[in-house]
Amino acid sequence: MRLDELSEFGWIERIRRAAVRAGVPRHVVIGIGDDAAVLRPRRGEDLVVTTDALVEDVHFRWRTDPARCVGARAVAASLSDLAAMGARPLGVTVAFAGPPGLSVRQLDALTSGILAACRTAGAPLVGGNVSRARRTSLTVTAVGAVAPGRALRRDGARRGDRILVTGSLGRAALARARAEASGSPVRHVPEARLAAGLRLARAGFVGACIDLSDGLLADLRHVLRASRVGARLVLPAVPRPRGFDASCRRARIHPATALLAGGEDYELLFTVRSQAPSAAALTRRLGVHVSEIGSVVARGLHVEGASTGISGGYRHF
Amino acid sequence: MRLDELSEFGWIERIRRAAVRAGVPRHVVIGIGDDAAVLRPRRGEDLVVTTDALVEDVHFRWRTDPARCVGARAVAASLSDLAAMGARPLGVTVAFAGPPGLSVRQLDALTSGILAACRTAGAPLVGGNVSRARRTSLTVTAVGAVAPGRALRRDGARRGDRILVTGSLGRAALARARAEASGSPVRHVPEARLAAGLRLARAGFVGACIDLSDGLLADLRHVLRASRVGARLVLPAVPRPRGFDASCRRARIHPATALLAGGEDYELLFTVRSQAPSAAALTRRLGVHVSEIGSVVARGLHVEGASTGISGGYRHF
Repeated sequence: MRLDELSEFGWIERIRRAAVRAGVPRHVVIGIGDDAAVLRPRRGEDLVVTTDALVEDVHFRWRTDPARCVGARAVAASLSDLAAMGARPLGVTVAFAGPPGLSVRQLDALTSGILAACRTAGAPLVGGNVSRARRTSLTVTAVGAVAPGRALRRDGARRGDRILVTGSLGRAALARARAEASGSPVRHVPEARLAAGLRLARAGFVGACIDLSDGLLADLRHVLRASRVGARLVLPAVPRPRGFDASCRRARIHPATALLAGGEDYELLFTVRSQAPSAAALTRRLGVHVSEIGSVVARGLHVEGASTGISGGYRHF
Repeated sequence: MRLDELSEFGWIERIRRAAVRAGVPRHVVIGIGDDAAVLRPRRGEDLVVTTDALVEDVHFRWRTDPARCVGARAVAASLSDLAAMGARPLGVTVAFAGPPGLSVRQLDALTSGILAACRTAGAPLVGGNVSRARRTSLTVTAVGAVAPGRALRRDGARRGDRILVTGSLGRAALARARAEASGSPVRHVPEARLAAGLRLARAGFVGACIDLSDGLLADLRHVLRASRVGARLVLPAVPRPRGFDASCRRARIHPATALLAGGEDYELLFTVRSQAPSAAALTRRLGVHVSEIGSVVARGLHVEGASTGISGGYRHF
């Protein structure tokens, strides 16, 4: 069956049923099916809202990206923004747009990926929109809550802060390079660092925080610009998956390019005051591996240990 | 200048500056420029979230729709959903997608329409996303707040309720018919009935409420299905603009079709208990003209005074 054989309401009903099967938590007062969703935060919480879009032939390609992974990545991208604010997710809305010829099997796989990512994060799908369009796209809005005044920001870095990052970088860039080279599917689905973000928002020693969506250098520059400081980055300290350099060589990309400019890692980059716990202590505290990769200085962006072959984003300012 | 001459950050910065010029109310803790927006509701409020999309060649056409009107309509559609829930708007996010050849002048006009609609409603633009795409689209998420348990719902209509509607219907359908016939621009920009919705949510006598986006019959059917009731609708009582029937004849559409199946009116359709104030008293109370157009019965949808020439949505069930 194709999308043009479903009515708008048939399409919505299909998504609604899958969302109900996935479970509706108690803080959802009204879910899919009314004019809007109603969610109940805790008393006195601030509200966190973010929107992100995945567009066919811009952010994914049907030729290489399985629908389930596309759905999951769309949700992960928005939830990652909540993580970067230290927010607890309350719910997600998705605006689906698809061409008439899209198969309902593909649509169901998109929905299934969306709901899988929602379930992992404890963030129910509570509403959205469906529309015809020339190309498929998913626009995901995530809504969350945070204790008043405790949201993590981009503009809190201070000279002398240490710069840390969760997990390891470059996996998404490597998966894309492999898909480009061999047509192998991009099965990489990142997971938003929500638990780590929540714990960072409760800690008193965090300067700035951002999630790595555009790439380490580009996102670090956002922090530096907002905080009006500079940074020293130690490339060999940037965490990478096991066997990464060899895999990059096979996929014919430069490891430093993948690490510094890769994007879509959805790890958290954050700064802490100099007297904050060590990376090892933070690893225990956040429940995810944390690496120290540099420090905040007065101005400029200095990358130590970088070869000269880095493209796509590396730039002093 | 064209969109492909702007970087992603140049594009965001253009929108951010316009939003800041439009004014940022105090409940916006963090606006455009961080990973997510942070909004401060009043203590104990429920959260209301809704997403709607306007897609080029599906919901609007550059040939007939001025960019400023497209932007304003995209926001009005989402705010209208908040109005239908009785919610107070807190903020709006917009995901812009546009082709490389879109002129920055068009983009600025879209943004200006968005901000004008935001300003009218007291709902600041607090975030969003920008992306390349084959066709232009705007996906608007509106976030609002309502006193706990007071959100207006679709499923609250009871047999014996009276059915009322704000304002007058058919204007959008007429504007579209004129554009089809003569290529004249569609300047019609509806305004969400936020103040009326707020007052209805405070009243104790409202059964169900919905905003008229799909058309009177289609939206009434949503209410009837959710509430498991039927309705008797009196077509001559459906409010229409002055000179409407003659304008419809000139534009070669059937007035009843425009009234019953037109869509995009963004008026509120609601039911009240039989002992509730009269339409005249409700008109004074809501600050907008209110007409009584029928009543809730056990089952079926009966339209009285309808000719047989109605197309596009009219159907007994």
